[in-house]
Amino acid sequence: MNFASDNVYGVDQAIMDALVEANTGSADSYAYDEITKRVEKRFNQVFERDVKVFLVTTGTAANALALSTMAPPFGAIFCHAFSHINADECGAPEFYTGGAKMFGLDGVAGKISPEMVRESLKGFIRGEHDPKAAAISITQSSELGTVYSLDEIQAFGDLAREKGLKLHMDGARFANALVSLGCSPAEMTWKRGVDALSFGATKNGAMGVEAVVFFDLDLAKDFEYRRMRGGHLLSKNRFLAAQMEAYLSDDLWLNNARHANDMAKRLADGHAKVEYLRLGVECQANEVFVIMPKAKHDELEKTEAVFHEWLASGSDTAPVGPDEIMIRLVTSFLTRQEDVDGFLKLVS
Amino acid sequence: MNFASDNVYGVDQAIMDALVEANTGSADSYAYDEITKRVEKRFNQVFERDVKVFLVTTGTAANALALSTMAPPFGAIFCHAFSHINADECGAPEFYTGGAKMFGLDGVAGKISPEMVRESLKGFIRGEHDPKAAAISITQSSELGTVYSLDEIQAFGDLAREKGLKLHMDGARFANALVSLGCSPAEMTWKRGVDALSFGATKNGAMGVEAVVFFDLDLAKDFEYRRMRGGHLLSKNRFLAAQMEAYLSDDLWLNNARHANDMAKRLADGHAKVEYLRLGVECQANEVFVIMPKAKHDELEKTEAVFHEWLASGSDTAPVGPDEIMIRLVTSFLTRQEDVDGFLKLVS
Amino acid sequence: MNFASDNVYGVDQAIMDALVEANTGSADSYAYDEITKRVEKRFNQVFERDVKVFLVTTGTAANALALSTMAPPFGAIFCHAFSHINADECGAPEFYTGGAKMFGLDGVAGKISPEMVRESLKGFIRGEHDPKAAAISITQSSELGTVYSLDEIQAFGDLAREKGLKLHMDGARFANALVSLGCSPAEMTWKRGVDALSFGATKNGAMGVEAVVFFDLDLAKDFEYRRMRGGHLLSKNRFLAAQMEAYLSDDLWLNNARHANDMAKRLADGHAKVEYLRLGVECQANEVFVIMPKAKHDELEKTEAVFHEWLASGSDTAPVGPDEIMIRLVTSFLTRQEDVDGFLKLVS
Amino acid sequence: MNFASDNVYGVDQAIMDALVEANTGSADSYAYDEITKRVEKRFNQVFERDVKVFLVTTGTAANALALSTMAPPFGAIFCHAFSHINADECGAPEFYTGGAKMFGLDGVAGKISPEMVRESLKGFIRGEHDPKAAAISITQSSELGTVYSLDEIQAFGDLAREKGLKLHMDGARFANALVSLGCSPAEMTWKRGVDALSFGATKNGAMGVEAVVFFDLDLAKDFEYRRMRGGHLLSKNRFLAAQMEAYLSDDLWLNNARHANDMAKRLADGHAKVEYLRLGVECQANEVFVIMPKAKHDELEKTEAVFHEWLASGSDTAPVGPDEIMIRLVTSFLTRQEDVDGFLKLVS
Repeated sequence: MNFASDNVYGVDQAIMDALVEANTGSADSYAYDEITKRVEKRFNQVFERDVKVFLVTTGTAANALALSTMAPPFGAIFCHAFSHINADECGAPEFYTGGAKMFGLDGVAGKISPEMVRESLKGFIRGEHDPKAAAISITQSSELGTVYSLDEIQAFGDLAREKGLKLHMDGARFANALVSLGCSPAEMTWKRGVDALSFGATKNGAMGVEAVVFFDLDLAKDFEYRRMRGGHLLSKNRFLAAQMEAYLSDDLWLNNARHANDMAKRLADGHAKVEYLRLGVECQANEVFVIMPKAKHDELEKTEAVFHEWLASGSDTAPVGPDEIMIRLVTSFLTRQEDVDGFLKLVS
Repeated sequence: MNFASDNVYGVDQAIMDALVEANTGSADSYAYDEITKRVEKRFNQVFERDVKVFLVTTGTAANALALSTMAPPFGAIFCHAFSHINADECGAPEFYTGGAKMFGLDGVAGKISPEMVRESLKGFIRGEHDPKAAAISITQSSELGTVYSLDEIQAFGDLAREKGLKLHMDGARFANALVSLGCSPAEMTWKRGVDALSFGATKNGAMGVEAVVFFDLDLAKDFEYRRMRGGHLLSKNRFLAAQMEAYLSDDLWLNNARHANDMAKRLADGHAKVEYLRLGVECQANEVFVIMPKAKHDELEKTEAVFHEWLASGSDTAPVGPDEIMIRLVTSFLTRQEDVDGFLKLVS
Repeated sequence: MNFASDNVYGVDQAIMDALVEANTGSADSYAYDEITKRVEKRFNQVFERDVKVFLVTTGTAANALALSTMAPPFGAIFCHAFSHINADECGAPEFYTGGAKMFGLDGVAGKISPEMVRESLKGFIRGEHDPKAAAISITQSSELGTVYSLDEIQAFGDLAREKGLKLHMDGARFANALVSLGCSPAEMTWKRGVDALSFGATKNGAMGVEAVVFFDLDLAKDFEYRRMRGGHLLSKNRFLAAQMEAYLSDDLWLNNARHANDMAKRLADGHAKVEYLRLGVECQANEVFVIMPKAKHDELEKTEAVFHEWLASGSDTAPVGPDEIMIRLVTSFLTRQEDVDGFLKLVS
Repeated sequence: MNFASDNVYGVDQAIMDALVEANTGSADSYAYDEITKRVEKRFNQVFERDVKVFLVTTGTAANALALSTMAPPFGAIFCHAFSHINADECGAPEFYTGGAKMFGLDGVAGKISPEMVRESLKGFIRGEHDPKAAAISITQSSELGTVYSLDEIQAFGDLAREKGLKLHMDGARFANALVSLGCSPAEMTWKRGVDALSFGATKNGAMGVEAVVFFDLDLAKDFEYRRMRGGHLLSKNRFLAAQMEAYLSDDLWLNNARHANDMAKRLADGHAKVEYLRLGVECQANEVFVIMPKAKHDELEKTEAVFHEWLASGSDTAPVGPDEIMIRLVTSFLTRQEDVDGFLKLVS
């Protein structure tokens, strides 16, 4: 009954099978193998257009490498104050961009708005004394399990074009957002103005593979160099590609995400029914934030259930009282309905 | 019959089995899992002392991260001109150190000597107009398949202590060197003055895992931060640890390396017997460099054999005549004796 | 009647005279000249202890170089959101530290408090997923012309020691703060826990020279390398030293600052008497912030008076109404009383 | 009798006068002043076309900032092994480019050739495993006081265009080379394919000012940001501009360089007449390299003459015997004929 994160679970069996199957004979190293080539084509299909795609092993690498193509060392990147790139990656974007400055904006429910970016841009009035506004990054689904609507994404795309900025989407939980919106990958990205995407697979069943997907193909120029000098080009790259190929086969990625979202919804609905519990934020993907009395929390901690406290940060969630604690529950492709129901029983 | 590199082969079956086995239940993410903890202890045994060890997915990451603890941004690192860190990593050490300067020395047979470093240091006479001499990096076994003797390593260790430098060993093919020398891991490293080691496993049977091993424990301080912001901390780290655990079990790593070295020796000995062929450099591990008439090379290229031409670089190897070509043949844990013999038949 | 900044005025005549005087004969280059040596000793006297001091030409260089000794690339630096290092240097601290993360705190009247830093530190709970807390930087006097009291500085020093952080003081207007407090340089710095200081002279009469002063001498180790590779070591360094020597002679620096502060006080007092004007923040050094009706502002803009609008930022100053504008007036060593009185006449 | 360097002398009186004259009234800071505007126009005249020009205080800053526009962090820069950018700037180019790799080539007499760059490029065969070839930098006049002919510069320009590289000229001693060739600034730069120039003034009479001059105007885009975050934008920039304006007025720069070159020629000719002395390299600008018996050197060291030993480096100069020492003598705009003759008397 582990709700600590969607990365505490292992590898989807279909993906593990693909790894075993890929392990035959020799193959060209450094991403020149056949599976990698197939995956590159597969992404064109998934996104209904030509894209440039590069595999890496972590979401942090995907994000930081993608951002390094969008912002110069003297650039400014706008994002949510508590976005993964700003709050959880130990400065990886700063490292890979060579020192770009993150402008963490205080958005509600894990999401920022174009208006917030506009407001921040108003402070850029002193030429080179400010950094150069360069990129916006939004997280889909967000760190609080919320989802940007297509119109909201479009508004970011419009702002980016108007201001000459690039638009990045951190899609560590891309599939969860996609099934939540029920749209196509193309609709959720380049058709709305997204220039580059960190396409996550690890949290949704892979062992460790993420893709950097470029819709603005100019940004992809020289990306191989960036990946290499970051130490992120695997010699036996076929084993990254095999994971991604299986992930994108037979709707595995969508089915896994749908299951996780369903389990989260069940969890959220169950909590909403309990008198002394309430949700910190609406559940739109695979994360549930529950505000509970401290006493209840302490009781829960003594059970076998695994979860994390989530520090409230201003107006991002519903207010957390002095005698309350907010916890985060994350569901995954392997979360069982009985675990959900078991947890609900514990808190009820 | 693929001799292009030791990374064109896949994963040792025992390691693949370990991955499958590790894929049960949930586990703490980000290297807090049990397998990672076991591996950390295992390294203490392997090196007969307390070490600090960190897993990453590539040799480039291991090298660049290790060097970033040894040289400041304004530091100088001494290495072979054609070492992997200087010639094959697209500037990863410069990236991770924040701009340290590599001093590539022209050593014979892929190896440098303490005297070369001393000679280079003589040029450091202008204080801060030069970078600050910081570290030496040697490759064991080297890019030309040669091996530093224990005395040679000791001489580097002595020089490093004398000059206040740190000593790094790039051990992408550590096991091959170890079985070549027939000594213990401790003897080949910290007992001879090595401060940090990139301990390779990928080329010798793993899917993609290398360890940064610190003997100078002060250097390991804050390494977690460096790994994280490089994007090299895997959320499902247990799958890196599982590879390494299997690699270090039942002498798998030593047996694999011994087999690869044996196959290389058989290749080298076979070539030496052919009148119009000669070795570019003595075979001491799992690489064989063969100088052959261009006509022979062109003939070979039409066969199923896969290999790379190796550009001669000055005095590093035996001289290559104007009508000759030097090729590199790399053997691995999966190289079959029949492939070796088949190749020898092709060139004879 | 120029109140745009204290850097729109030129060079104090005594400093210009010193430059002319220094221009005789040859001198060792790169800071090995005699004037530089004298200045180094002079700083020991000024601060009543051994310090390490390095001259550079800009405050941005002084700040960024100083911070690069206090925070690793993966470090966190706490400062005011609108401090010069965070808001006016185009990411210079990020550049020089190799990507450290600035934590801009929203403090009142241009000042932050130890409690704000403590509060921010509470979020550092995830090990290497957060950057490593490394340094605090306070500005004395602040960008809003306010001054930290000795007790306030001491509280930062205590916090820094408690948490293992370094304490930096941006003293671009050090002299203005010093005469405002009426204490000694030692009392305002190392006796209260400051580890390194950017000691400004340019705004107070020099042509272009600032000093990085280290009280924690360990931080000064290798600083020469940092300055050199930043391109901040001048070959004809004696002309930086000559400026600083004159600046520190005959109480020039103190007298200049006292004059600027006096003029600012006169300006502030004069504004306070006008019914429809009010100060945005108390005047404690050489800056005055005046909130006025937009109509008055537009009128003023048509006069010969030169000044800048200052964007209100939250609770940092007194609230600025929708029909109001806040302006900043900066006085300098060359501001004449008649200019002050003339400006007061314009706004009355 | 100081021949240690051309930076041991002070400031040309005309330049000092200009500083004094510039010190009146207030002026917009940060390069918005009138003198800076005039200097920008003046450079268009000097180079007979529109250029973009930026002032900084050191040659290292000019070089490193210029190169940062020409090479990405993963780029390669080709230069002489003993060029200032590779051997004397403590890695400033690596710092400002974010880690680009310098390829130091062993050229004769301080100069490299296009053929050397071509030869080095032959090793760039492995895609992103190598850095990306980005720029060539030549020094005019060179560190050994030699001068590239117009045809030689053209050949570099042609190679740069052919290979998609940028061509940088380090002109710390630009004027010395110019009067040596007797051509126009335009002929020696953009008409031969130079994309950006570090235009030195400090060694030839200024207090501390150099210009980065862009002929490829695209490279100048965003340069203001780079200069600012390097800490190289002076608030009182008019005092940099005033130096440069005086430098470029009344042929001061050319007359100063001509004098220095004449003095060097006189020194060189004088040495050539002494039996046991010989030149290490032909004198073409304002540096003279003399090989002398060690005994003579030791004798000289006891005199009032100031100079530096110059370490011989392979084939760069005439061979230096085991009982010989090579010294460098640099002349400047202030070197007196009597000092030259006095030195010649000492060595004769």
